[in-house]
Amino acid sequence: MRAEIIAVGTELLLGFVVNTDTVFLGRTLAGLGIGCHRQVTVGDNPRRLEEAIRAALARADLVITCGGLGPTVDDITLETISRATGRRLALNRAILRRIRRRFARLGIRMPSHNARQALIPEGAVVFPNTIGTAPGFLLPLSSSRKRGSPRSRGIPAFAGMTTPKFLAALPGPPKELIPMATRHLIPRLRRMAGGVVILSRTLHLTGLTESEVDGKVRDLLALEGALTLGIYAHAAQVDLRVTARAAGRARARRAIAGVERRIKKRLGPFIYGADDETLEGAVGALLRRRRQTLAVAESCTGGLLGHRVTEAPGSSDYFRGGVVAYANALKEAPLSVPPALLRRHGAVSGPVAEAMAAGVRRLAGSTMGIAVTGIAGPTGGSREKPVGLVYIALATPKGAASRRCRFAGDRSTVKLRASQAALDLVRRYLIGHAEVASSAQILPRDLSRGASSQ
Amino acid sequence: MRAEIIAVGTELLLGFVVNTDTVFLGRTLAGLGIGCHRQVTVGDNPRRLEEAIRAALARADLVITCGGLGPTVDDITLETISRATGRRLALNRAILRRIRRRFARLGIRMPSHNARQALIPEGAVVFPNTIGTAPGFLLPLSSSRKRGSPRSRGIPAFAGMTTPKFLAALPGPPKELIPMATRHLIPRLRRMAGGVVILSRTLHLTGLTESEVDGKVRDLLALEGALTLGIYAHAAQVDLRVTARAAGRARARRAIAGVERRIKKRLGPFIYGADDETLEGAVGALLRRRRQTLAVAESCTGGLLGHRVTEAPGSSDYFRGGVVAYANALKEAPLSVPPALLRRHGAVSGPVAEAMAAGVRRLAGSTMGIAVTGIAGPTGGSREKPVGLVYIALATPKGAASRRCRFAGDRSTVKLRASQAALDLVRRYLIGHAEVASSAQILPRDLSRGASSQ
Repeated sequence: MRAEIIAVGTELLLGFVVNTDTVFLGRTLAGLGIGCHRQVTVGDNPRRLEEAIRAALARADLVITCGGLGPTVDDITLETISRATGRRLALNRAILRRIRRRFARLGIRMPSHNARQALIPEGAVVFPNTIGTAPGFLLPLSSSRKRGSPRSRGIPAFAGMTTPKFLAALPGPPKELIPMATRHLIPRLRRMAGGVVILSRTLHLTGLTESEVDGKVRDLLALEGALTLGIYAHAAQVDLRVTARAAGRARARRAIAGVERRIKKRLGPFIYGADDETLEGAVGALLRRRRQTLAVAESCTGGLLGHRVTEAPGSSDYFRGGVVAYANALKEAPLSVPPALLRRHGAVSGPVAEAMAAGVRRLAGSTMGIAVTGIAGPTGGSREKPVGLVYIALATPKGAASRRCRFAGDRSTVKLRASQAALDLVRRYLIGHAEVASSAQILPRDLSRGASSQ
Repeated sequence: MRAEIIAVGTELLLGFVVNTDTVFLGRTLAGLGIGCHRQVTVGDNPRRLEEAIRAALARADLVITCGGLGPTVDDITLETISRATGRRLALNRAILRRIRRRFARLGIRMPSHNARQALIPEGAVVFPNTIGTAPGFLLPLSSSRKRGSPRSRGIPAFAGMTTPKFLAALPGPPKELIPMATRHLIPRLRRMAGGVVILSRTLHLTGLTESEVDGKVRDLLALEGALTLGIYAHAAQVDLRVTARAAGRARARRAIAGVERRIKKRLGPFIYGADDETLEGAVGALLRRRRQTLAVAESCTGGLLGHRVTEAPGSSDYFRGGVVAYANALKEAPLSVPPALLRRHGAVSGPVAEAMAAGVRRLAGSTMGIAVTGIAGPTGGSREKPVGLVYIALATPKGAASRRCRFAGDRSTVKLRASQAALDLVRRYLIGHAEVASSAQILPRDLSRGASSQ
């Protein structure tokens, strides 16, 4: 089954509203094993909407429109669907009563133009709206099979055309669309889709560039057909998404697990989590499992590291807090960084990063201390210490060690990449993938390379 | 001039990524008076992308593609544009050098497949990418006018077709697309568009709910035609967008300024900025102008407040740093909160917030100290101190005072709202809209009402 989505609304074209309906519907269709081949957005323009509906129906088996079902004059979807499909609109008395009751409950007389919303194309299955006034519907359009034949699954059939097609119309506001789709459209689509499902699992990697990841899994990226692998680069991580199409969820899961095993064999230590898992969540889980506690000393990240650690619920179990040592005075006093060290090496240096990490570990009484000092830019760089230069240090009961990193990007991106590299350093230490022995060597790989991917 | 946008990426169809490129481009085109009639999203599928490009070029004068310009095999936009337009790809040595230099700066040898990104359709104007590796371009496609004629504006002309058409290709990541479009595409489109412009200006308010703002500007929200006002609620702020359509930028600007003056008269102190201005930027500008310095003591925000303050370039001029006092030990030691105070009132209390603000001000040697202590949830709440309860305190040379707030939402939202209220407290103090005299009264309005809007 091939689907297309048509979003209706000039506000979408003007960029005043972010289209989250298509995000919801895209995920939903994928989960049902229905390929969505195209999404189109048109304004409140009858001619262009009609053209879009006709073109979509010519290509796809299922066309879903979102929006334009409201009571005002610029809500044109209903009339346009009627014109594009040749189905007359008929007044649905049950819906009219429902809309009247809704207004009565609010103590308002129904405005006359709301009666338009009780018009439904002939032959459509009505989807009541529990949140707003506009109902939705599913309109079966054509089928070569005879009425009542077993494969038509209870949907009326029409002679003369060769494939069954369906047009679903849903209201635009996500608050109305999501419950309506969940209750009325999705169960019907599940029956029509007949067993095939598409499942995806996204692995998150950090510490490698997109090209490095690509180089390790190129054979898998070339997979085609029922099992595919996609690669997606972000500012401080690379995602690998495995997608499987199979008869049933169990089979799809097994196919994904097979590819995941192969990826883990090659890239294991760089994978910090999957799907909704975050790096801060992964670090938190490791800290909790190993009964370790963490404190942070931040200069250029300004608090971002602590903010990210505390995004994980329950982080007070392992996070003690820290110092945002933006001014040097705050490096000296609570963190006990020797002024001589600051003078000799400068605030952005390995020795100062190590002293900060050791200092915050002592101050907070934590088992681990992590420190970040660098130049986020856009100003403050020099030839020896350019914008993007960041030192990250880790202090543990065994001592402190630091790593020099170089991050590309604007101020926000440098901060993000530095926080990512710092969190990943904690993670790799906890999984035994980082040697913290001397400042010459923390990691088997250069942090700066990975974290600056794309 | 009629435009269409084509977004390329299977991840968009699957709903894994929200398409914000089309939001940016939609607003941009509207601002230039260029009607955007259609947005289409297709996956990484050469056949469907080619079909979409051909159809869009048949209808529109300007087609903009976003995405699919990366170095990997599933980045298909470049080859597909070449096929759809019949323009051969040629190696651009300047781009190749630029990509090589970029990798060299990061100390990495350029992977061989990155060389693909230096291929550009013949006749295209190259847009360099300052953030990532993929360049963009503008490809003039046809014109009935002779080469060099005055109206061709320096763009090569081709005989045999009747209207000039343009295809612009931009990279998918918004961090790359937005600066590239702003620097290279928009100035060219502005020259081509001429005439009628649509301008918008968005005022950002904090400290009031959407309903409170609505109540103050209802008459203006009813404006119709060439001048309109829209209201948009976010987690910790309310936006008012004034949009004017006029013959020329100067007229549109004057119309907007008129409405803005009326809004400011009614809601002045709640407006912290407009358009791209952030609350942290506004606070930073005020601190710099008043020659004040700031330090932060954070408990439940975990570093978010410091992170936000340091997002503003040059914040080291006025930001000294602070303490993330997640564990009570960090409230006692560097912040000098008396243990007796913690025992008597608990960590989440007005007196402790005030002691934290005064303590960090002393520790950092800043003129102002701000403190946040509260319960972000989802656990840790009690009947007397529920999730969402936050105390915010401000310490100045005149003393310290605190405010009790109650924020709705999940952990992240409570953190965001608390950081917003804390920053806004600094802002209002600096503009003389907050009296910091006793803990009974910081603000003329209850912070908790405004900051918990929506």
